[in-house]
Amino acid sequence: MRRLHVHLLPDLVDEADLAGATVVVIDVLRATTTIAHALAAGAREVYVCLEVQEARLVGEGMFDGQALRGGERGGLKIPGFDLGNSPAEYTPESVGGRTLVFTTTNGTRAMLRCRQAKHVLLGAFVNRAAVLNALATEDSIDLVCAGTRGKVTREDTLFAGSLVDALVAAQRDAWNLNDPALLARSAWIEAFPTSHAGTVDSAALASVLADTQGGRNLHAEGLSDDIPRCAQLDLLSIVPHFDPETCLVRK
Amino acid sequence: MRRLHVHLLPDLVDEADLAGATVVVIDVLRATTTIAHALAAGAREVYVCLEVQEARLVGEGMFDGQALRGGERGGLKIPGFDLGNSPAEYTPESVGGRTLVFTTTNGTRAMLRCRQAKHVLLGAFVNRAAVLNALATEDSIDLVCAGTRGKVTREDTLFAGSLVDALVAAQRDAWNLNDPALLARSAWIEAFPTSHAGTVDSAALASVLADTQGGRNLHAEGLSDDIPRCAQLDLLSIVPHFDPETCLVRK
Repeated sequence: MRRLHVHLLPDLVDEADLAGATVVVIDVLRATTTIAHALAAGAREVYVCLEVQEARLVGEGMFDGQALRGGERGGLKIPGFDLGNSPAEYTPESVGGRTLVFTTTNGTRAMLRCRQAKHVLLGAFVNRAAVLNALATEDSIDLVCAGTRGKVTREDTLFAGSLVDALVAAQRDAWNLNDPALLARSAWIEAFPTSHAGTVDSAALASVLADTQGGRNLHAEGLSDDIPRCAQLDLLSIVPHFDPETCLVRK
Repeated sequence: MRRLHVHLLPDLVDEADLAGATVVVIDVLRATTTIAHALAAGAREVYVCLEVQEARLVGEGMFDGQALRGGERGGLKIPGFDLGNSPAEYTPESVGGRTLVFTTTNGTRAMLRCRQAKHVLLGAFVNRAAVLNALATEDSIDLVCAGTRGKVTREDTLFAGSLVDALVAAQRDAWNLNDPALLARSAWIEAFPTSHAGTVDSAALASVLADTQGGRNLHAEGLSDDIPRCAQLDLLSIVPHFDPETCLVRK
């Protein structure tokens, strides 16, 4: 039996239960989407940290003081930082060849939960096909949804469900799924009944993501243009890997 | 706007966020089902407690020492107790006119989370229609899923989803739903696509409940006969009310 477990929040899984597993960390709106964009745009690496002050110190004291600082608080760019948390900001011109120091509370907390994992990948709709490809031969997979401030979010759960649906489609009986995996898969199928045929459309996905906690937050912050950007299914062919020992994310 | 929030585990909602709300506590397999059966069978009241030792002390020191003790650990009847946690045990012959002291970890923890709520009802598939009727005019509703040992369970989420689906069916736009409410509703609709027509069948429900964490646990414990018992949709017309001040559940 292959094992595929979903955790709707980082706090809902013990670190020890992730030991030896391949984990996908999910923060669709927007951290894992934005980091994938940054690496696809040629950023050398992304150092992720929990706190703004930590990002300031790391930015000054490491990487020869040459790292760019990015991230958000309350959805907005942090004063004194170079970049916010919109995938649109991370272009070859802005980040090519550079090291980034990036602070995001929910996504980073989820990554740090995976200290004992074998591999930690970052997933989002923009690199879904690449993540699925990376998981194709794995036998023990955990999908860790970041959520928002300790609350389960629909956008992360839907993405987890889209992975579950694709992974088990060919052979449901070969998989051990936990209850949150079944729930996430149901949510995805209910949103996209035709997804088994692989015909999900990015525009339809964007309108579903608009009706999620993260989507409503972006709308309230005047950042709703980011929703369709985060819904560009399979746009990027890279899979960011997080190394818990160094806190660096690389291709 | 009417407010309807689902909490997939008791720990995922702050007590203060339930202040003034009408809450439904959900532990489908089996505590809320069994307590509904006990009251429907004529038990006078059910004193719920978290710990076995507490149940022993309360059973000896209160209610003139005449209370029956029921509940489970690891699915099985507790040594020295009168009754286990199967709804089938709670008949007019066994519990009519009696006070019960009942211990259940997950369900009781969920009830105790609701200390500040206005009303705390216990819900399960066996009294779904009665619960819906009790909620018909409420404007601020929280559904608290008990889960199992800190893990989200599909059976409780499905029941929450069935309530969300029924409550919002007539007028979706009149309701403020949180993301877990949308997820629970999706899970229910995906399991029972025809449910909008009110045609869910208890046998089909039992086979869905068999593929949940609680269902698998009951099967492993040799208690799978309880699954169809807990799937008898709308069997009972009572709504148990929990009083956080006294820890008593009454009709």
